[in-house]
Amino acid sequence: MVKLVAMYKMPKDKEAFDAHYESVHTPLVKKMPGLQKVEVTRFVGTPMGTEPDYYLMAEMYFLNHEELKNSMKSPEGRAAAKDLMGFAGSIVSMTIGEVVGE
Amino acid sequence: MVKLVAMYKMPKDKEAFDAHYESVHTPLVKKMPGLQKVEVTRFVGTPMGTEPDYYLMAEMYFLNHEELKNSMKSPEGRAAAKDLMGFAGSIVSMTIGEVVGE
Repeated sequence: MVKLVAMYKMPKDKEAFDAHYESVHTPLVKKMPGLQKVEVTRFVGTPMGTEPDYYLMAEMYFLNHEELKNSMKSPEGRAAAKDLMGFAGSIVSMTIGEVVGE
Repeated sequence: MVKLVAMYKMPKDKEAFDAHYESVHTPLVKKMPGLQKVEVTRFVGTPMGTEPDYYLMAEMYFLNHEELKNSMKSPEGRAAAKDLMGFAGSIVSMTIGEVVGE
């Protein structure tokens, strides 16, 4: 299984971010072909009691790299990427990972 | 469900890191009380073709914050944390997150 991982730093306006993320961005992501599962995590703290470096993480699972690549190239993938750049381009980092152990 | 998320930057010696991670650290983590699941992800690239910021992520799932806190305080949790600081203290960031959507 491979994952497209989006890590978001703290948005300036959390409420506006959350509203767009839930009502606009998530529906676009869920249309991406080949998507097996999405898991969204909100960071709330650290074991040391400090502020976390990131606000939110979204993990989008695909069967393999080929499926992920095709999904990102698809019209639905491009629409999700375009929306992402518009509302969170300055605070998001995208990474591709392989699940190596459970 | 809550997660303890460990994000590792690129180690200087990947082979030594991987060997310690698999043969020493993972068995210690798996002894932590209340641990529901561990998912380990190796980052291999980005959609832009650049180098990823992180080398590895480990997500340790617990039922709730209380269980996570108790697990970290337990002898097994302290042993895993001590080992972590010894082999990866300078490259790891630990964060606590809540799974908010799937």
